[in-house]
Amino acid sequence: MNGKVIARRIRAIRRRMNKKKIRFLLVTSSANVTYITGFLGEDSWAAIAKGRVYLLTDSRYTEQAQKECPSCKIIDRAGPMANAVANLVKRLKSVRTIAVEDSVSMADFEQLKKSIKARLKTTSGIVEAARSIKDQSEIAAIKSAAAISTKALEQLLPHIKPGVSESELAGMLDFQIRKLGARNSFETIVAFGPNGSRPHHQPGKRKLKKKDAVLIDFGARYKGYCSDITRCLVIGGMTAFYKKVYDVVEQAQAAAIKTIRPGVKLTQVDAAAREVIDKAGLPVYGHGTGHGFGLQIHEDPFLKPDGKGKLKAGQVITIEPGIYIRRQLGIRIEDDVLVTETGHKILTRSCPHSLVLPDSKV
Amino acid sequence: MNGKVIARRIRAIRRRMNKKKIRFLLVTSSANVTYITGFLGEDSWAAIAKGRVYLLTDSRYTEQAQKECPSCKIIDRAGPMANAVANLVKRLKSVRTIAVEDSVSMADFEQLKKSIKARLKTTSGIVEAARSIKDQSEIAAIKSAAAISTKALEQLLPHIKPGVSESELAGMLDFQIRKLGARNSFETIVAFGPNGSRPHHQPGKRKLKKKDAVLIDFGARYKGYCSDITRCLVIGGMTAFYKKVYDVVEQAQAAAIKTIRPGVKLTQVDAAAREVIDKAGLPVYGHGTGHGFGLQIHEDPFLKPDGKGKLKAGQVITIEPGIYIRRQLGIRIEDDVLVTETGHKILTRSCPHSLVLPDSKV
Repeated sequence: MNGKVIARRIRAIRRRMNKKKIRFLLVTSSANVTYITGFLGEDSWAAIAKGRVYLLTDSRYTEQAQKECPSCKIIDRAGPMANAVANLVKRLKSVRTIAVEDSVSMADFEQLKKSIKARLKTTSGIVEAARSIKDQSEIAAIKSAAAISTKALEQLLPHIKPGVSESELAGMLDFQIRKLGARNSFETIVAFGPNGSRPHHQPGKRKLKKKDAVLIDFGARYKGYCSDITRCLVIGGMTAFYKKVYDVVEQAQAAAIKTIRPGVKLTQVDAAAREVIDKAGLPVYGHGTGHGFGLQIHEDPFLKPDGKGKLKAGQVITIEPGIYIRRQLGIRIEDDVLVTETGHKILTRSCPHSLVLPDSKV
Repeated sequence: MNGKVIARRIRAIRRRMNKKKIRFLLVTSSANVTYITGFLGEDSWAAIAKGRVYLLTDSRYTEQAQKECPSCKIIDRAGPMANAVANLVKRLKSVRTIAVEDSVSMADFEQLKKSIKARLKTTSGIVEAARSIKDQSEIAAIKSAAAISTKALEQLLPHIKPGVSESELAGMLDFQIRKLGARNSFETIVAFGPNGSRPHHQPGKRKLKKKDAVLIDFGARYKGYCSDITRCLVIGGMTAFYKKVYDVVEQAQAAAIKTIRPGVKLTQVDAAAREVIDKAGLPVYGHGTGHGFGLQIHEDPFLKPDGKGKLKAGQVITIEPGIYIRRQLGIRIEDDVLVTETGHKILTRSCPHSLVLPDSKV
């Protein structure tokens, strides 16, 4: 990871640390560790103290850490993590208080308490707040992830044929994503027909019929960064009702996207989509209208009826309204949107809503 | 999930609760929730109190929970989890102390403290101790997972040809696993040539050469239960040195498996494998010799030089010694073994160590 990028991130985080009078921040959540070090391995913590970033890892990852984190001081621990932190604290001297991220487990916190002489307190949101505003390298990675998703879906289209199962299609899509050098952002959802009405449907044995509907919710993860797209299509011709519902979802999504610019309340974006569906006399979805994403698939900000705060330039969010009618259909359209200084930019524009299949399109 | 199986598990857990004088146990770790309820969804907690098991979930999972957990009282929460727990505690009356699993995050624990009037304390290992001894339904699921892994690997063999990349092979294997109705236990490791010397190698662009070595470490997860297998093979004929190292690893594994029976110290099993490698004058591996697995890929017991305790009948463990020589080769052989009343049973016997390929075998 580019040293300048990391240095900029650390400066932003140190400003927040100073405000909270934190001199030693122990970063235990995996995505936060990646953000401040560039490290993509597991089972590692990081610390920010006395102008430096420390990565606490073990011999399985030393080689990888040296490559990925040139600007960090790498600590190769042999024993328990708490001991490694204690040794670092001892070495740095005059560390009186350590702030630990409150996502740490009680067990780990108790272990730290036993091992470390300094006072421990918990804190939250410091690295997350910085992460919510994406820098150029992050936006580039998200764009690449979205482009890979689009390409993988294109390559899947010829396989969307009667007889294929949800589970097979999901597997094929994942395979395409991997062949393109990426991984999944989350477990791919493929739902046929009425299965689409369950937003969290797990792909199963259900086979595609000659006349059927398909919902695909998926994303590629590239260089650690996610993308998140949902597309719907039908084969064998669509009913007038499906077409009507589809159009309303698309209008709801467009209405929400239209509101996106810095300073707009999260609830306003959320309400814009719901209003369109409600006015059309169709059932309004129970999930949020969208969410931030980046190193994690769900991050700040969350666009929902009780969401707090406003959009900021540099945030990357999904917009994904849906209409679900149990035992009948489920339609959701989801795109990834960057909040720009003056408005917004759709990052998944290259993935058309109308997926062209041999015999039909929405 | 069969009500009788769940009832038996709960009885075992309640005995441990009684010993620790725990009347209300809040189960927050996902695998533990699955174990005591049968629920396979996410974002849910469970509680054992006053002779009942409660599942605290939300509307996304209500349908699934009703199907998977007939013996539980399902609580469909709308607001925060802490409030749902507080309401349950209030309803049950006379609950003075709540024991919370110490894998809970500090943030969640603080939230619980604020919301609940009863005293909170942490506890650990209660459900895990029960989980470490597998019941018949669990052993059956693990056997199925192992059989699926074996079949998936068989179907992969024809694709192990010069020119294929690590990443492609990993993707193909995962696809086979999914087609067989299962998921991955963990991220598949495929390592060619010297890449095998990194036990945690991530499959990359490296292509298979005409003369090359392949290490595959993978597992299918079926009905929530894992399997974990590592196999090595070469194409284009193998060197005398590879053959020598392979044989030593196989002997080391056999030596460790031979020691397995109830009452044997974990360290003894671990040492048996290391001794063979050490005596052969080859470098002894840095990782453990094996680990328990089940709902999680890594569970008690852990077979390593500082492992504490003894094997018990009903435990299912991996045995996976390896030899790693940087920039040259990595060979590991891993099988899944059930500790029986009188000794042991290898659950991955159907997956031969010598994988038959058109032009070579180990």
